[in-house]
Amino acid sequence: MSKDNKINVTIWNENVHEKTNSAVCEIYPGGLHGFLAEKLNSPDLNIRTATLDEPEHGLTEEVLNNTDVLLWWGHAAHHKVEDAIVDRVQQKIWDGMGLVALHSAHMSKIFCRLNGTSGKLHWREVGERERLWVVDPSHPIVAGLPEHFELPYEEMYGEPFMIAADAKPIIISWFEGGEVFRSGFTLQRGYGRMFYFRPGHETFPSFHNANVIKVIGNAIRWLKPAYRADYPKTHTPDSLEVISPKDFKHVKAGIIR
Amino acid sequence: MSKDNKINVTIWNENVHEKTNSAVCEIYPGGLHGFLAEKLNSPDLNIRTATLDEPEHGLTEEVLNNTDVLLWWGHAAHHKVEDAIVDRVQQKIWDGMGLVALHSAHMSKIFCRLNGTSGKLHWREVGERERLWVVDPSHPIVAGLPEHFELPYEEMYGEPFMIAADAKPIIISWFEGGEVFRSGFTLQRGYGRMFYFRPGHETFPSFHNANVIKVIGNAIRWLKPAYRADYPKTHTPDSLEVISPKDFKHVKAGIIR
Amino acid sequence: MSKDNKINVTIWNENVHEKTNSAVCEIYPGGLHGFLAEKLNSPDLNIRTATLDEPEHGLTEEVLNNTDVLLWWGHAAHHKVEDAIVDRVQQKIWDGMGLVALHSAHMSKIFCRLNGTSGKLHWREVGERERLWVVDPSHPIVAGLPEHFELPYEEMYGEPFMIAADAKPIIISWFEGGEVFRSGFTLQRGYGRMFYFRPGHETFPSFHNANVIKVIGNAIRWLKPAYRADYPKTHTPDSLEVISPKDFKHVKAGIIR
Amino acid sequence: MSKDNKINVTIWNENVHEKTNSAVCEIYPGGLHGFLAEKLNSPDLNIRTATLDEPEHGLTEEVLNNTDVLLWWGHAAHHKVEDAIVDRVQQKIWDGMGLVALHSAHMSKIFCRLNGTSGKLHWREVGERERLWVVDPSHPIVAGLPEHFELPYEEMYGEPFMIAADAKPIIISWFEGGEVFRSGFTLQRGYGRMFYFRPGHETFPSFHNANVIKVIGNAIRWLKPAYRADYPKTHTPDSLEVISPKDFKHVKAGIIR
Repeated sequence: MSKDNKINVTIWNENVHEKTNSAVCEIYPGGLHGFLAEKLNSPDLNIRTATLDEPEHGLTEEVLNNTDVLLWWGHAAHHKVEDAIVDRVQQKIWDGMGLVALHSAHMSKIFCRLNGTSGKLHWREVGERERLWVVDPSHPIVAGLPEHFELPYEEMYGEPFMIAADAKPIIISWFEGGEVFRSGFTLQRGYGRMFYFRPGHETFPSFHNANVIKVIGNAIRWLKPAYRADYPKTHTPDSLEVISPKDFKHVKAGIIR
Repeated sequence: MSKDNKINVTIWNENVHEKTNSAVCEIYPGGLHGFLAEKLNSPDLNIRTATLDEPEHGLTEEVLNNTDVLLWWGHAAHHKVEDAIVDRVQQKIWDGMGLVALHSAHMSKIFCRLNGTSGKLHWREVGERERLWVVDPSHPIVAGLPEHFELPYEEMYGEPFMIAADAKPIIISWFEGGEVFRSGFTLQRGYGRMFYFRPGHETFPSFHNANVIKVIGNAIRWLKPAYRADYPKTHTPDSLEVISPKDFKHVKAGIIR
Repeated sequence: MSKDNKINVTIWNENVHEKTNSAVCEIYPGGLHGFLAEKLNSPDLNIRTATLDEPEHGLTEEVLNNTDVLLWWGHAAHHKVEDAIVDRVQQKIWDGMGLVALHSAHMSKIFCRLNGTSGKLHWREVGERERLWVVDPSHPIVAGLPEHFELPYEEMYGEPFMIAADAKPIIISWFEGGEVFRSGFTLQRGYGRMFYFRPGHETFPSFHNANVIKVIGNAIRWLKPAYRADYPKTHTPDSLEVISPKDFKHVKAGIIR
Repeated sequence: MSKDNKINVTIWNENVHEKTNSAVCEIYPGGLHGFLAEKLNSPDLNIRTATLDEPEHGLTEEVLNNTDVLLWWGHAAHHKVEDAIVDRVQQKIWDGMGLVALHSAHMSKIFCRLNGTSGKLHWREVGERERLWVVDPSHPIVAGLPEHFELPYEEMYGEPFMIAADAKPIIISWFEGGEVFRSGFTLQRGYGRMFYFRPGHETFPSFHNANVIKVIGNAIRWLKPAYRADYPKTHTPDSLEVISPKDFKHVKAGIIR
């Protein structure tokens, strides 16, 4: 947390569709990152943005050292994110930083690395109705939400969704076209946690929806590290107990088994 | 499974210590891979070996397509394993192949990728006593084992062990010097599963121990894919239900939310 | 397993609706238990049935000692199942027996005891279409199934479903009326495992569906205990290591802390 | 939470050993409940105590409605706790109340009900040294703790420990006599969560240890419900989507399958 006791949030966006499809910036003025920064604006948050085409994708050591929770929106340019930057982001998560992976971030490098899976799923882009059901109403990420809410136009994502076995489902979606999907789940890796949240296609207005923004805002507060532990160093400690003398001649000869 | 209904097993070893430390081949004639191949020999298994210095590390498409369960022993040369080969191994695991990660494979690339973690731990190499406790006696991997068994000389690995949150513990170790460790755990990623098993330092005779070999043998039978499902292709399915007509002017203008 | 190497299956049914609603036996001649016994009939299974009104509900020590996998269908008479019999069933599961809990068994005593939860859910009984999606296609319980299949008429069960946090989802349902539901999940308790499977309302013909029967049959084979471990006895073992002498005067006085 | 924004804590103790063994009250003046109340005293907590021999074991509807976190110490009188009171406690946990189960509460009715298991383990009561290792240093329950700490005199609890498969291990113990044990783990059931913590034998001074008290205090703050959701009512909702007309003649005749 920052000195002023606020949560430091960095919103990362590949910012690619914004440059090629005018509909995106019509729906999301300022790009997805700029729009989200405005929507999530709150006195307890220090929000900044970063994009793919900045030096080091805008995710320098300094930026990440001052980030409590990172939001990630990517789709067309997953492969253009440099491995060295993904290494750095992953290490910060292991150290305690939180991650909110949004929509098509399900196939981003960082998502796949944390899950250990391919992130594959089925999809259909016709703008159909999605109904999101809260399956763990006690979770702080869904505080203040109704049992279910709807998005009138969304891309469909369908099961089977290739995610880690410890993905804890918080939200499951019903789609007008006939599919289901684990749309909100949490995961812990090292000392940090992530939350994946499905809605947010670049040409549908889901980030205008108050419930969607509430979920993301709740996730930011929940992902903030409760306290900072020192990440363990691999080291050779002295023994804590007396170790009996060993007859290494026997060991070396492979005789004692 | 092979045509003759046997389980195809490939034992991979980096085979580095064998070339620089004569004690290793004294204890394990034929190298760790060769020794394990002999110890695990059984009528229901087709066993072959592969090593780091072979072309493609001995893990060609053809070899992996004919491998039901892969054993992995690595330590000094984790960084020399090419990313493209690790990609291939990971894809085969997602497709259903089983993996037994042995001892210092806890920091191999494939182990870290499946866990999504660093694999870090504490360690001490003085040849102390380890007692392994079975914490889930009903698991097929520990069939036929006593409640606990001992290894007189082993390297110590200690907690905290940086592994995935869904690591299901089967065995937990007690060390003479005062530490504890989750020495045996399973994990599923995609359609395949892995088992990590701690013992097996190159200069201690643990692979001579009948219980250690029994665990590895059980793991091979348990990791064999029960049946082969087609790994899901990311695709755009037609809708299964009728989707109501949409007024996309409104969507594009961001008016309907 | 029985001496003839077959799996011993006991199908338990409360057999209450069968006596009051003629539609039930029209759809399921012989009652739900009798019908399932016939549908599941196979050379590798020894199937018997048991019902609520038999002495000890048909679940004597002898019956359960000779049961590898128990199927449970109950709805109207959960409260009439005696606690002592539920204790016995639960102990056998802890010892390794498998359980298939069907449909409205989600509020049976044994289901709630294994989950540690209330088993609550939303429901609607209008005979709507259900589409079941396989979310883990590699699991033996869904071997041979398509990615999804439909039941034209079913009762709706909807989230939130109050189940244990380690419920591993294998199947998630989509309902015509707009809900989603974790329709197939596994759980381990002690040495035994359970599988819950949603379809099977008494006045809809779901047990005539070949995919439904295949899932139940697969579950029986998967739940069969791999091998029998002795359930641990709480006991006072001698120490395995030398324990240093203690000065109990200090302990008793609460001085050494 | 109470009106004054404090966390309402109720410390429950069976208070049996205190009456028959003078050593217990020598070490723990005021009984285990009274001693813990004093040690945990803090401006942000409203602490009260309750014991077995009070009417309704001191756990009336009113008391539980005003309890955010319940501590439980029991051993000799598990069977004397009335089922109706355990029902009530379990329902409050499902509604969001937190539970800290201490030491021999591993075989209390409420512990076994939440786990769905027997709670069995091995034990030895000679007052040996226990070393507790933190296996998830990022968890708020172990905030401020060293990597490991010792208790010079404790009862031994040993694996296998019969607990739920989703028990998330936070602390694992090493014992002087040669055993290991999952000494601290969390679990969610319904909307509430529990934390089990091993130390605290009635004739050893573990509750004098500052680290033990810190863990219990941290657990209380972590278990406090983040916010109160309404526990779901089982009900029959109207459909959210239009359900196509059904031909029930076919259904009743079991023809459409």
